[in-house]
Amino acid sequence: MSANDAKNARTAMTIAEMQAIMDTSPFIKFNGMRIISADPQTSTIVVEMALRPELERLPGTGQWHGGALSGFIDTVGDFALVLGIGGVVPTINLRVDYLRPATTLILTATARVRRAGRTVGVVDVDVEDSEKRLVAVGRACYGMQPG
Amino acid sequence: MSANDAKNARTAMTIAEMQAIMDTSPFIKFNGMRIISADPQTSTIVVEMALRPELERLPGTGQWHGGALSGFIDTVGDFALVLGIGGVVPTINLRVDYLRPATTLILTATARVRRAGRTVGVVDVDVEDSEKRLVAVGRACYGMQPG
Amino acid sequence: MSANDAKNARTAMTIAEMQAIMDTSPFIKFNGMRIISADPQTSTIVVEMALRPELERLPGTGQWHGGALSGFIDTVGDFALVLGIGGVVPTINLRVDYLRPATTLILTATARVRRAGRTVGVVDVDVEDSEKRLVAVGRACYGMQPG
Amino acid sequence: MSANDAKNARTAMTIAEMQAIMDTSPFIKFNGMRIISADPQTSTIVVEMALRPELERLPGTGQWHGGALSGFIDTVGDFALVLGIGGVVPTINLRVDYLRPATTLILTATARVRRAGRTVGVVDVDVEDSEKRLVAVGRACYGMQPG
Repeated sequence: MSANDAKNARTAMTIAEMQAIMDTSPFIKFNGMRIISADPQTSTIVVEMALRPELERLPGTGQWHGGALSGFIDTVGDFALVLGIGGVVPTINLRVDYLRPATTLILTATARVRRAGRTVGVVDVDVEDSEKRLVAVGRACYGMQPG
Repeated sequence: MSANDAKNARTAMTIAEMQAIMDTSPFIKFNGMRIISADPQTSTIVVEMALRPELERLPGTGQWHGGALSGFIDTVGDFALVLGIGGVVPTINLRVDYLRPATTLILTATARVRRAGRTVGVVDVDVEDSEKRLVAVGRACYGMQPG
Repeated sequence: MSANDAKNARTAMTIAEMQAIMDTSPFIKFNGMRIISADPQTSTIVVEMALRPELERLPGTGQWHGGALSGFIDTVGDFALVLGIGGVVPTINLRVDYLRPATTLILTATARVRRAGRTVGVVDVDVEDSEKRLVAVGRACYGMQPG
Repeated sequence: MSANDAKNARTAMTIAEMQAIMDTSPFIKFNGMRIISADPQTSTIVVEMALRPELERLPGTGQWHGGALSGFIDTVGDFALVLGIGGVVPTINLRVDYLRPATTLILTATARVRRAGRTVGVVDVDVEDSEKRLVAVGRACYGMQPG
C-alpha cells in the first residue's frame, strides 16, 4: 500500500456513512438501493436493488423498466466517487446500454472510477442480474465539486 | 401533404391509445407521465410529468433526482417512435446531459424522431421546466421491432 | 437585440479569426474544414468538409469513414463554443449516431450550443450530405476553460 | 474450453486476415493502425497507432487531436467484433470520454466485446499511451450484419 493509498483508505467513507447519505434521498430510498461493499483502493462500489412493483415494465412480468436501471446506474456511479470525495457530486452526463431484459428480483451494480480528475470524474457501471448475466452497462461523468 | 405523410397520418396512433399503453406500465403510471400532444407529421410528442415525493433528490427541496429525468427521457423517446410504429420498442441505448437543476413541479419533455430506419430509430428529447428553461437533453436509440 | 446579445455580438470572433485558429491545427487543416457561417446570436456555426482519399472507408467508393465524421463533429462542436469564448476548449466527451452512409463529396456540419455553463458546455451537431440528408448527429460536452 | 468456445476459436479470423481487411480501407491505412494481438476466447483485440503529423492537435507539440482518437476507437471496437463475425460491421453509435491529453508517439487501444447479440453488439475500448496512462475510454454499438 503506497502513501497515497494509505491516505485514500484513511479518508474514505464507510459503507454505513454512504448508506446514510443514500437514505437521505427520497428517490434513492424509494428505489431501495443497498450498498454491499466498497473498496477505496480500487474506487469500486457494489450496490444491490430489489424490484418493487412500481419499477416493473409490465404488471406481473418481473421485468424491470429501463428507467429504473438508468436511475440505478446514475446513483451507483455517483457513489463510487463519493467513496473518495466524501460528498455527492452532480451528474454531467449519463449513458446506458441495455444488453438483455432484466428479469430477476435482485440486480447488482458494480461501479468503478476510471478517472477522478480535478474537474471531471468518469465512472463505469456494470449491472448484473442474480444469474450473473450482464443486463446493462453504464458510463457517466460527474463534476468533482460536491454540492 | 404527400402520399406518404397521408399514410403516416392515417396509421398514427391517437393520444388516447398511446396514453393507454403508457398506463399499462406500472413504472410509467407511477411516474405519472401524461401525453400533451403528438404530431405524426413531424414525429414529435410532448409529455408532462409532475414531481412526486418519491422522485425528489433531497426531501422538501422540490428538486428532481436525475434518475427520474433519465426514465422520463427513455420513455418519451420511445413513444415518439410508438406514434408511427404502433407499439413500444426496446431501448438500445440512452444518453442524458443534465444542464441545470430541475426544480419546478412540472417538467415537459419534447421528443422528436431524427431517424426511423429499418432496424434502428434515433430520437432527441428536450426537457424543460415550467419556466421554459432547458434542464436536460437526451438522445436514445431503439430497435424498430415492437415487442 | 438585448443588451446581453449586443455584448455577445461585440465580443464574438469573426469567421476569419476562427478559420485561422482551425488552420493552425494540422489535424483540422488536413481534414480541410472550412467555416461557412457563424451566428453569435444563436451560437450556431456551419462548417463544410470535402472528402479526400485518405478519409474514404473503401477505395473508390466515395463513402466517408465514420472516423472522419467523428473528428468533424468534435471539431465543429468545439468551434460553436469558440465563437462565444474566443478560444478552443477541451472535449470532455463526444457521442455520434450514424444515421446513413455518407457518400457525397461535401458534408456540412451545423453545430448549435445547447448550454454554455460556467464549467461545461453542451453542443449539438447535425451532419448533412449535399442532398440535405441527415447522415449523422453528434452531441459533445466541453470544459469551458480555453487552453 | 467449452464446445462453444471451441467453435469460436475455430472460426475466428487470424490477425493477418484482419490486418488485410484494415489495410483495404484508405482511412485505416492512412492512420497506420496495426493489430498487436487478438483473443477470440475473450473477444479482445489490441491495436497500436503511431502519431503522424496530420493527426497532431497543434504543430510540433506531439499531442494527438481528439478526432484521431475517436476514429481509432470506432475502428478498433469494430474489429473486436470482426474477430468473431468475420466481416466489418456498421457503427450505430460511438461515445468517447477524453481523460488526459494524449502525448506519446504510440497509443494502444484494447477493445473487448461486452455483448454480441443477434442484432446489436456493444464493445468497450480503452486507449492507453506508452506510459500505460489511460487517455480515453470509448464505448460503441454496432449492427451485427457485416456489409
